[in-house]
Amino acid sequence: MTAAPLTLLRAELARRGLDGFIIPRADEHLGEYVPECAQRLRWLTGFSGSAGLAAVLADRAAVFSDGRYVLQLAAETDPTLWERCHIIDQPPPAWLAAHAAGARIGYDPMLISEEGLARYSEAGLAMVAVADNPLDAIWTDRPASPMAPAVAHPLAFAGRASAEKREEVAAALRAKGEDAAILTDPASLAWLLNLRGTDVPYTPLALGFALLRADATVPLFMAAAKLSPGLRAGFRNDVTISDRSAMAPALDALAGQRVRVDAAGAPVWFAARLRAAGATISPGMDPCLLPKACKNATEQAGARAAHGRDAVAICRFLHWMEQAAGRQSEVSAAEHLLALRGEGAHFRGESFPAISGAGENGAIIHYHATAATDRPIRPDEMYLIDSGAQYQDGTTDVTRTVWTGPGMPPAEMQDSFTRVLKGHIAIATLVFPQGVAGPHLDGFARAALWRAGLDYDHGTGHGVGSYLSVHEGPAGLSRAARMVPLAPGMIISNEPGFYQPGRYGIRLENLLLVQAAPFDGGKPFLRFETLTFAPFDARLIDFSLLTRDECAWLDAYHAQVLARAAPALDAAARAWLTQACAPLRRPR
Amino acid sequence: MTAAPLTLLRAELARRGLDGFIIPRADEHLGEYVPECAQRLRWLTGFSGSAGLAAVLADRAAVFSDGRYVLQLAAETDPTLWERCHIIDQPPPAWLAAHAAGARIGYDPMLISEEGLARYSEAGLAMVAVADNPLDAIWTDRPASPMAPAVAHPLAFAGRASAEKREEVAAALRAKGEDAAILTDPASLAWLLNLRGTDVPYTPLALGFALLRADATVPLFMAAAKLSPGLRAGFRNDVTISDRSAMAPALDALAGQRVRVDAAGAPVWFAARLRAAGATISPGMDPCLLPKACKNATEQAGARAAHGRDAVAICRFLHWMEQAAGRQSEVSAAEHLLALRGEGAHFRGESFPAISGAGENGAIIHYHATAATDRPIRPDEMYLIDSGAQYQDGTTDVTRTVWTGPGMPPAEMQDSFTRVLKGHIAIATLVFPQGVAGPHLDGFARAALWRAGLDYDHGTGHGVGSYLSVHEGPAGLSRAARMVPLAPGMIISNEPGFYQPGRYGIRLENLLLVQAAPFDGGKPFLRFETLTFAPFDARLIDFSLLTRDECAWLDAYHAQVLARAAPALDAAARAWLTQACAPLRRPR
Repeated sequence: MTAAPLTLLRAELARRGLDGFIIPRADEHLGEYVPECAQRLRWLTGFSGSAGLAAVLADRAAVFSDGRYVLQLAAETDPTLWERCHIIDQPPPAWLAAHAAGARIGYDPMLISEEGLARYSEAGLAMVAVADNPLDAIWTDRPASPMAPAVAHPLAFAGRASAEKREEVAAALRAKGEDAAILTDPASLAWLLNLRGTDVPYTPLALGFALLRADATVPLFMAAAKLSPGLRAGFRNDVTISDRSAMAPALDALAGQRVRVDAAGAPVWFAARLRAAGATISPGMDPCLLPKACKNATEQAGARAAHGRDAVAICRFLHWMEQAAGRQSEVSAAEHLLALRGEGAHFRGESFPAISGAGENGAIIHYHATAATDRPIRPDEMYLIDSGAQYQDGTTDVTRTVWTGPGMPPAEMQDSFTRVLKGHIAIATLVFPQGVAGPHLDGFARAALWRAGLDYDHGTGHGVGSYLSVHEGPAGLSRAARMVPLAPGMIISNEPGFYQPGRYGIRLENLLLVQAAPFDGGKPFLRFETLTFAPFDARLIDFSLLTRDECAWLDAYHAQVLARAAPALDAAARAWLTQACAPLRRPR
Repeated sequence: MTAAPLTLLRAELARRGLDGFIIPRADEHLGEYVPECAQRLRWLTGFSGSAGLAAVLADRAAVFSDGRYVLQLAAETDPTLWERCHIIDQPPPAWLAAHAAGARIGYDPMLISEEGLARYSEAGLAMVAVADNPLDAIWTDRPASPMAPAVAHPLAFAGRASAEKREEVAAALRAKGEDAAILTDPASLAWLLNLRGTDVPYTPLALGFALLRADATVPLFMAAAKLSPGLRAGFRNDVTISDRSAMAPALDALAGQRVRVDAAGAPVWFAARLRAAGATISPGMDPCLLPKACKNATEQAGARAAHGRDAVAICRFLHWMEQAAGRQSEVSAAEHLLALRGEGAHFRGESFPAISGAGENGAIIHYHATAATDRPIRPDEMYLIDSGAQYQDGTTDVTRTVWTGPGMPPAEMQDSFTRVLKGHIAIATLVFPQGVAGPHLDGFARAALWRAGLDYDHGTGHGVGSYLSVHEGPAGLSRAARMVPLAPGMIISNEPGFYQPGRYGIRLENLLLVQAAPFDGGKPFLRFETLTFAPFDARLIDFSLLTRDECAWLDAYHAQVLARAAPALDAAARAWLTQACAPLRRPR
């Protein structure tokens, strides 16, 4: 059955005179969550992971994904049709160059960025843009584009009027001599226009495109039927709404103008169309990314409130978990946490699929428990849960790793848990001058693990939106993150971990809000305000590895957890939390 | 009197139809130390700092330098002739664009890199390469190019034969499909050909250029008279020696070939000449930089031996310093240390001008005590000395800051000294996986200062050569360093500091050797081996700020200092060192 799409695609490519074609897991916004209508990779190959690409030639074909998906890729794809490749060890451009040197390889210019395409061209491949995707010609029952309603994000949560934001960003364009910027990231539209939608799961996006002109007006390309009347009324004349089909002519009309295009974030179609029309490309980051990342005072207050409700749900959940071993499973535990969160005000859903992993499943960094993989939570093992919520006033993301008891964990697990905790505290307590970027700080989360020859194979932290993407740019706490200095108002996750494949996983995650740290004189310093409040499991801590300062931080943090969550708990949960947040035994 | 050169230069520019000209402080190798014949900036402006540039227009002229030289720039240049500008706040391209938009600005293509020139072109300036420098036409008593003899660097110190090095680097060129590489850095020639010279102070360089061909042969462009007979005999037929005048024809002969040129390190003249000749430029780092930085086993052993002798000199000096307050000056102290070093085997001179600063002079990061600035070393103040030596088996660089006594330092100074020391220990004790680069680690040296709102305005460390440049690329411990992963065999300085302008300066510097850190399984880790041995002044340490681990490191380090230096000391110095290296009072 999976043979049919591949056979059909090859016939279609032959008809078009193409020797091959690449099919990335992407929609036209190149974002993390892809609507059903754009799940071309899954339809063609069966592979449902969140990152990947297929390359199809007349006589061979391959699916590429990363280390997270090695097993899933093997399970979901037919080995008689597809080679299964690690995208780092065997990059698609190298695979194509090895098997199809000189061939004409097609690509859909709406599904790859200019930087992404450059890696193919640099490998010496003759890449051919197609005007319409050959898969769409054969995928006859392809779902329609999502048409979920877009609604206004109230000023009470957004904190700043759209007109004010538009004027600020337009001024930044004018300062660089730019006439307009292309906006292809729906999160940028959501922030700039104070709108939210439900076109994709987990992130409240309304899919669409826009131009921001240097005079602060915005031609928005989105089906008018999606926009609620309240939203449209609020736009007045500054935001004009057109159908997607009006976008190409609008770009053509920019002939002779300087237009900012994000070479990493925007589909290459935009730069190509603009160049053909005679516009000048001004390469640069999407101008909404940085102001969106720096939350205003209202958004910061919203984040604190949302995290307060989230703390209550997590603390109730952790109390409930005390009795879970032998009675609950990974799936039932995640469902219980979701139900507890649902009781909080302004709750709108999960911010990503919860990672609920017991024992060996905790070591799978992006594990998702399904009916097929679900396993009981057993006594005396590690249990890791990484989950988050979308509230209208803020997005949360928290990970705790607990020991299910009733016995005590082995010393080896305490050792690695404590090293992860030391890394978490090292980040949480950092004070640093303005100008420092995530890549400069990532190592602080790892130094205690490194000292024992241990490490973890993911970044330490990512930006988080305000009732928006749980993974938000441009800053992040990892060596691979962009060199964007941390700035007041940014919300960043702090999530060091450690994984023993086949045995257990540890990850400890709070969200942090970047704040000014005033000192007398000198240059401006920054610090982190912790937003997330839930206890760390003391049974897993080897106190002899902690310094006096680290113990003091833990005690102070636990006192805050108790103060924030206890008032909303019933007596039993409050008694448990009081115990869980009791001052630690002093190490020396 | 200083008016004459500027007037003459303007006349010369007018004769050539140029509206302006830029004069960087650089020779044709774009290195740190510039021979007398290339001190054009100093001759034209009077400014003698180690970094700067002059821009001359018909009606105005400016000299630019950085924050280190604000006072010196003002003192050495005539304000009626020159505007004095901060090169960061007011970059020369912006100054020229503001005052000479559309003008024809000349530059000497042998004195600026392709990347350096690009900053002028990007500012919209019409830059015109001159075939011969107009300053040289008017600087009638310009000294001749240095003709110091170049001698062989014996295998006993170099560890690897030149032929072996040439074959290894040539293989790297072949792997990238390159036919040749341009070598403009005399340190690369010195390493590749196992030669040393005395053309510039402090660094044993013989100035010259070379090509390395993919067949491992080297056309060397250096006056044959400079090369010692032993050196020439060792080259055999693989290294051909030609005069500098043969270089341009040799480049022209590369028509049709792929040639690696370092856009940051090589004068732009090379890329321009090659392009005009029909060669293809392959942009890339000087291929000698990385293998030169990774010292072989012989060089590592040499470094340990050289640092052992250096430790004896420093310990004798620090003992002598106990009686210096009220009797010695900054200059006499530096001279005494130089004399002590001169007693060590294989000593060849200082590796840079010693920074000997008492009290407020310690806060001047690149202070150089001269007869004009010399000041007594007084009782009860801070004294900082940053110095290094060239030994044939290794290059050293060490900084200590001591309290002159007889009283005790104020608590504030102990606080900042201890924070600097904590940063020094944090770097010294790091263990980290391969792949980590200097910019990822720099913050560890600063975190204890940052916590108090303090910082220092220089990098934490730089690479150091093996009887070569004391400032060596490509890796460094600073946020501005290249993203080059640290690798076994690299020698890097660890020198956090703190400066209270007008009062005192603190810097604590050891050299570190990058080593493999074996752990069972998993990926390769690295650690630092400390090369420098000299006590830290315990009077300046606030023990309450140190952790147990930091105290343990200090005690172990001091025990090593004593073990290495004591046998070579006389009784009085040995008694003093035993006291200075005694185990610290335990903080808790």
